[in-house]
Amino acid sequence: MASPIPHPEREEIRVEAVLHALADPVRLRIVRELAAHEEGLSCGVLDLGITASTLTHHVRTLREAGVVRVRPRGTSRISTLRRADLDALYPGLLDGVLAARR
Amino acid sequence: MASPIPHPEREEIRVEAVLHALADPVRLRIVRELAAHEEGLSCGVLDLGITASTLTHHVRTLREAGVVRVRPRGTSRISTLRRADLDALYPGLLDGVLAARR
Repeated sequence: MASPIPHPEREEIRVEAVLHALADPVRLRIVRELAAHEEGLSCGVLDLGITASTLTHHVRTLREAGVVRVRPRGTSRISTLRRADLDALYPGLLDGVLAARR
Repeated sequence: MASPIPHPEREEIRVEAVLHALADPVRLRIVRELAAHEEGLSCGVLDLGITASTLTHHVRTLREAGVVRVRPRGTSRISTLRRADLDALYPGLLDGVLAARR
């Protein structure tokens, strides 16, 4: 059996890591898409114009920062936004970022 | 006469630059101090444990991102948080970041 995909617990999440994870146009695009798909999605379906390995890197950065949760489903990986954790830790931060028009 | 210190206009501020500027422990510390001092302060008075040139770099990063406004006063420079601009562009973001306990 494969090892479970590691995630920081809510109390392990650090604001600098969250901000760094969000401070990238591709990752911000992924976060916007996940915010619009509460049920989660396989980020590979997004047309981001990047290679699979670059996408893997970005999703890992988001996961390790505590911004997204990734779970296996069949041969793909489904990402969801950790909105409850982020809203509890940093009320308003995520909505403020999502409100950004640029 | 010295050139005025340049700042992005509100409409030039970009969320990635703001997030990047905030995603650093020293800069976040500066932002917290400025949030507590609405009248602004000379960042040199803060005990940040960094050299003057490193401080200059951090304040420039915050200024160029649109997070702080810097104005000369005598021989020092007074920084203030651009709260109205940030709250208008990204409602909740700054409060969420300031709410962070880690």
